[in-house]
Amino acid sequence: MQSQEIIILFLSLATLLFFSRLLGEIAKRYHQPAVIGEIMAGILLGPTFLGTWLPFLENFLFPTTGNNSLVLNSITTIGASLFLLIAGMELDLATVFRQGKTAIGIGISGLIMPFLVGFILAWSFPDFLGIQAGGDKRIFALFFATVLSISALPVIAKTLMDLGIYRTDTGMMIIACAVFDDILGWIIFALILSLAGKDQAAHFPILYTILMFFAFTIFMLTVGRYYIHKILPWLKAHFTWPSGVLSFILVVALFCSAFTEWIGIHAIFGAFVAGVAIGDSHHLREHTRTIIHEFVSSFFTPLFFGSIGLGIHFLKNFDLLLTVVITAIAFLGKISGCLMGGKAFKLTSSESWALAFAMNARGAMAIILALVALQMNLINETLFVSLLIMSILTSMMSGPGMQKVLHLSKKQRFTSYLSSKHFISSLKANNLSQAIEELANTFAFFTPEERKKIVEESIGREETMPTGLENGVAIPHVRVSGLSKPVIAVGKSEIGIDFNSPDGELSHLIFLILTPKHEMQSQLEIIADIAKTLESKESIHRTLQSLNFTEFLAAIKTAKANG
Amino acid sequence: MQSQEIIILFLSLATLLFFSRLLGEIAKRYHQPAVIGEIMAGILLGPTFLGTWLPFLENFLFPTTGNNSLVLNSITTIGASLFLLIAGMELDLATVFRQGKTAIGIGISGLIMPFLVGFILAWSFPDFLGIQAGGDKRIFALFFATVLSISALPVIAKTLMDLGIYRTDTGMMIIACAVFDDILGWIIFALILSLAGKDQAAHFPILYTILMFFAFTIFMLTVGRYYIHKILPWLKAHFTWPSGVLSFILVVALFCSAFTEWIGIHAIFGAFVAGVAIGDSHHLREHTRTIIHEFVSSFFTPLFFGSIGLGIHFLKNFDLLLTVVITAIAFLGKISGCLMGGKAFKLTSSESWALAFAMNARGAMAIILALVALQMNLINETLFVSLLIMSILTSMMSGPGMQKVLHLSKKQRFTSYLSSKHFISSLKANNLSQAIEELANTFAFFTPEERKKIVEESIGREETMPTGLENGVAIPHVRVSGLSKPVIAVGKSEIGIDFNSPDGELSHLIFLILTPKHEMQSQLEIIADIAKTLESKESIHRTLQSLNFTEFLAAIKTAKANG
Repeated sequence: MQSQEIIILFLSLATLLFFSRLLGEIAKRYHQPAVIGEIMAGILLGPTFLGTWLPFLENFLFPTTGNNSLVLNSITTIGASLFLLIAGMELDLATVFRQGKTAIGIGISGLIMPFLVGFILAWSFPDFLGIQAGGDKRIFALFFATVLSISALPVIAKTLMDLGIYRTDTGMMIIACAVFDDILGWIIFALILSLAGKDQAAHFPILYTILMFFAFTIFMLTVGRYYIHKILPWLKAHFTWPSGVLSFILVVALFCSAFTEWIGIHAIFGAFVAGVAIGDSHHLREHTRTIIHEFVSSFFTPLFFGSIGLGIHFLKNFDLLLTVVITAIAFLGKISGCLMGGKAFKLTSSESWALAFAMNARGAMAIILALVALQMNLINETLFVSLLIMSILTSMMSGPGMQKVLHLSKKQRFTSYLSSKHFISSLKANNLSQAIEELANTFAFFTPEERKKIVEESIGREETMPTGLENGVAIPHVRVSGLSKPVIAVGKSEIGIDFNSPDGELSHLIFLILTPKHEMQSQLEIIADIAKTLESKESIHRTLQSLNFTEFLAAIKTAKANG
Repeated sequence: MQSQEIIILFLSLATLLFFSRLLGEIAKRYHQPAVIGEIMAGILLGPTFLGTWLPFLENFLFPTTGNNSLVLNSITTIGASLFLLIAGMELDLATVFRQGKTAIGIGISGLIMPFLVGFILAWSFPDFLGIQAGGDKRIFALFFATVLSISALPVIAKTLMDLGIYRTDTGMMIIACAVFDDILGWIIFALILSLAGKDQAAHFPILYTILMFFAFTIFMLTVGRYYIHKILPWLKAHFTWPSGVLSFILVVALFCSAFTEWIGIHAIFGAFVAGVAIGDSHHLREHTRTIIHEFVSSFFTPLFFGSIGLGIHFLKNFDLLLTVVITAIAFLGKISGCLMGGKAFKLTSSESWALAFAMNARGAMAIILALVALQMNLINETLFVSLLIMSILTSMMSGPGMQKVLHLSKKQRFTSYLSSKHFISSLKANNLSQAIEELANTFAFFTPEERKKIVEESIGREETMPTGLENGVAIPHVRVSGLSKPVIAVGKSEIGIDFNSPDGELSHLIFLILTPKHEMQSQLEIIADIAKTLESKESIHRTLQSLNFTEFLAAIKTAKANG
C-alpha cells in the first residue's frame, strides 16, 4: 500500500468507527438497538448524505473502487465473522436443542409464506419489480422470493443482545428459528446461483454444499465440541492465559469461516458454528468471553454494520411505490408466516409477535443477497435500493416491536434518577438532620414547606429505622405524594455523618431517595440497586474520590468491575 | 472480493495466527521473548521454507501480489499500530520524563556510533555492500548508516513486556531511549527520501515534518492528554462501558496514526503517542486496559510480527560474508555507542549492557526501512537479506542478553514444580497421616526409607505447627537433604482431612511440599505463592472441581481472574 492509501485506511476506519459508535449510543438512548444507529452512520457517511453534500470528502474517505475499498471491505467481512463468532459463543446449545422442533416448524412456516407471496408476485410483475432487461423470469422470481423470506441472524442477534433478552428462552427460540431460516435461505440462494449458472465461485454442486454444511455443523457440535472442551484446559495449563485461549478461539473461527465460504455457504456461518461449539464449554472462563465480546463489539461489529450503508446511494434510486409495495409484502409475508407457525406450535401471543418482529428483520443478509444479485445483473438499481430500505425498515421495526409486545419496559437503573443538580460534592452538614436538609434543598421544584415536610419525615424515620449501610453509605428514603417519578440527591461528606450503620462507621456517601407515594416497588428497587452496585469497599472508595458529578456517575456505572 | 479471495483471506489469517502464537509460546518456553517465535513463524510460512518445500501452498496462502497480499498487508499495518498503541498505554510518562535527559544523551550516543561506522563503511565500499548499479553513493551511505543505527521500538517494547520488566525503571529508561532513537531514525530516513527526490508520498518538506511531529507530540501529551482525561469519565458516565471507552481509544489511535503517516512519519508513531496520552489517565480502568491489551496481543500483534517473514526468501539471496560483516558492524556500533552513553550518564554496568542489548534490536523498523530502500532501488536483494538477518539476529540476542546481564532468573512459580505424576485426583486417606503418606508415595525416586522419614518428619511438624489454611487448603512441607529442586505432590480429598485449620474446616486440597534442605527461601516462596494464588473461595472451588491434572493446572493458572 502507498502511504496515501494507508492514511485513508486509518482515516476511514476512525471516521466509520466514531460515527457508528456515536449513533449506536444515541440509538440506545432512544431505546432502539445500537445496530440501527450503526447502520444509519453508514448511510450518513455514504453516498446518500456525505456523498451529496461533500462528494469529494466521501470519495476521499470511502472510495467505491481501488485498494482502500477492497481493504475496508475485507476488514468488515472479518468483522461480520467475528460478530457471528461472539453471537455463537453466547448461544445456549441446550436451549436451542430444546427448541429444535419448534424452531424448524416455525422457521419453515415463516419462510414459506413470504417465499410464496414473493415468488407469485415476481413471476406476475417482473418488470414492475425491476428485473434486468432480458433476465430470466424464473431465476428472478426465485431470487425475489428468497430475499423476502431470509432472516438476518446478525441483526436479530444484535437486537436481542441490545434488548438484553438474548440468553432468555424466548431469545434462544428466536435465534434457533433465525439460524434455521438463514441456513435454508442461503442454501436456496446457492441453488439459484447454480441455476443461473453464473456462480464463478461455486466449487461444488448444490447438493454437496448442503450435505457438507450439515456434516460440518454436526461434526463441530459433536466431535469438535468435545475436543475444544478437552483443549481449553490444556491451553490454560500450558499456554499464556488468557491470550492462548483467545488466539485459539480466533484461529478456530477463522478456519471455520474459510471452510463454510469454501463449500458455498457464507463465511459467517462457519464462525457462528465455531462460536457455538466453543461457547458451550464450561472451561471457557467469563474473563475470556468478556475480552473477546467487548473488543469485537467496540471495533469489528460497528465497522461491519456501519459499512453496510457505504457505497449505496439511497435517494437517487429511490422509488416510493416500489419500496412501499416491497416493504408491505415483506412485512405481511414474514409476520403472517411466523404468527401462523407460532400458533401451530402453541406459542403465547406475545411470543409469536416477538418472534414475528424479530424474524422480520432482513438486515445485512438481504443486503448481501441483493448486492450479489445486482452484481450478477439479476436485478436493477431501483429494486436494489427498495430491498435495502425494506431491510433497514424491517430491522428498525424489529427492536421496538419486540420491546412493545414483550412489555420490555427496561428496568430503570437508579443512575437514571441522578442529576448534577442534585449532587453535592462536599456536604457542609455536621450531623444527620443537617445532611438530609442540605440534600433536600437541592430539590428546587418543591416549595420550602414541602421540603420541610420531607426532611422531617425522613429524620423521623431514621429514629425508628436507621438507613446507614456498611462501608460508609447511607440511604435515607421517603415516599412523597404528588411526585411523578423517583428523584435522588447525593452528597459526599468528608467528615462523615452518623447514620447508625451496623458496622458503626460514619457515612461518607449519602443518597436521599424520594419516590412517588403510590409506588411501593420503585423504592425497594432503587435501594436494592444501590446496595448491589456499591457492594465492594473498593468501588465505594473510587466513588468517594470523584471530583465532580461526571466522575461520580462514571464511578457508579463502572462500580461492578474489578481493577 | 471474490469468494475465492475471501477463503484465502480467512485461511491465511488463521494459519499465520496459529503458527505465530504456537512458536511464540514455544519461544517463551525456552526463555526467549515470544516475538522471536512470531517472526520465525513468518519465515517458516514464507518463501524461505514453505515456499521451497510446497511452493504452490505458500503461493496459495500468501501470494505476494494481488488482492490477498494487499489485504493481509493492510491488516498487519493496523496490527502494528494497535501494538504500538498498547505499548504506549503501558508507558509511564512520569518515568520517561524523569529519564528524559539521560534518554536523549544515550540515544544520541547510541545513534551516532553505528551511524558513523555505517556511513564511512558504505562510503568506502558501496559495491561490496550492495549498492544498486548507478546508485547515488551519498544517499546509499546515508541509508546504510541509518538502518544500522535505528532501534525497533515495537520489538524492544515486546521483549521488555515478555521479560516482565517493561514497567520497571530500567525498562522505562530503555523505552525512552528507543522512542528517541526511533523518532530520530525516521526523521533521518525521511530526510534521505527527500534527498533522493523519489518520495512520492511526501506531503511536506522535511523541516515541516519534523516540526509537525514535535508539535503533535507536545500537543497530544499536554492538551490532548488533558481532554482525554476529562472525556474518559464522561464516556463512562454516559456511554456503554467498557465498549464506549474501548471504541474511543481505538478512534483516537486510528486518527493519530493517520496524522503521523500524513506528515511523513510512520503511522505507528501516532498510535504510540496516542497510547501514551490515553494510558496516563487514572480514569482508565484496569479492566479496559486488560481487554484491549489481551485482544491485541492475541490477534493483531502475532499477525504483525508473523507477517514480517512472509514474502522474503532468506536463503536465496544469502551472502554469508556480507551478513557476518553487517551483523558485526551493527553489533559493535550500537553496543559500543550505548555503553559509552551509559558510562557518560552514570548507569550501572549491568544497566548499560541491558540498554545496549535492547537498543541493538533492529527488528521490524530496519526491515521496513530496508524494504522501502529495496523498492526504491537504493539497495540490492542480497544487502536486503543481510539487513533482514541482521535485524533478526540483533532482535534474538536482545532478550537473552538482557536476561543475562540483569540476572533475570525469572522467579519460578510453584506451578512449575507440579506434575501429573505427583497428582492424586481423589485421595483415599481418612486422616492426616494417611494423606501425607499417600502423597509422599508418589515420589518414586525416593527409597521407601527416605519416604518414611519424610512422612514422619512432616507428621511430627503438624503436631507442633499445623499447616491447614483457610477455605479447605493444607500445605504440609518438609525440607529434605539431597533434593536438588523443590517437588510438590497434590491431592484432592472428597471427605476432607483435619489439618487443624484456623477456620475449623476440613482440608480438601492438600499440597505436600518438599524443598532442598539448604534452600530456606524456596520453601517460603512456594508457600506464599500457593496462599496468594488460592486466595478466593471461588478459585479453590474451581480447583476442586477439576477432573484431571490438566484441568487442575488450568484452574491453578487462571485462579487470579474473576468470573
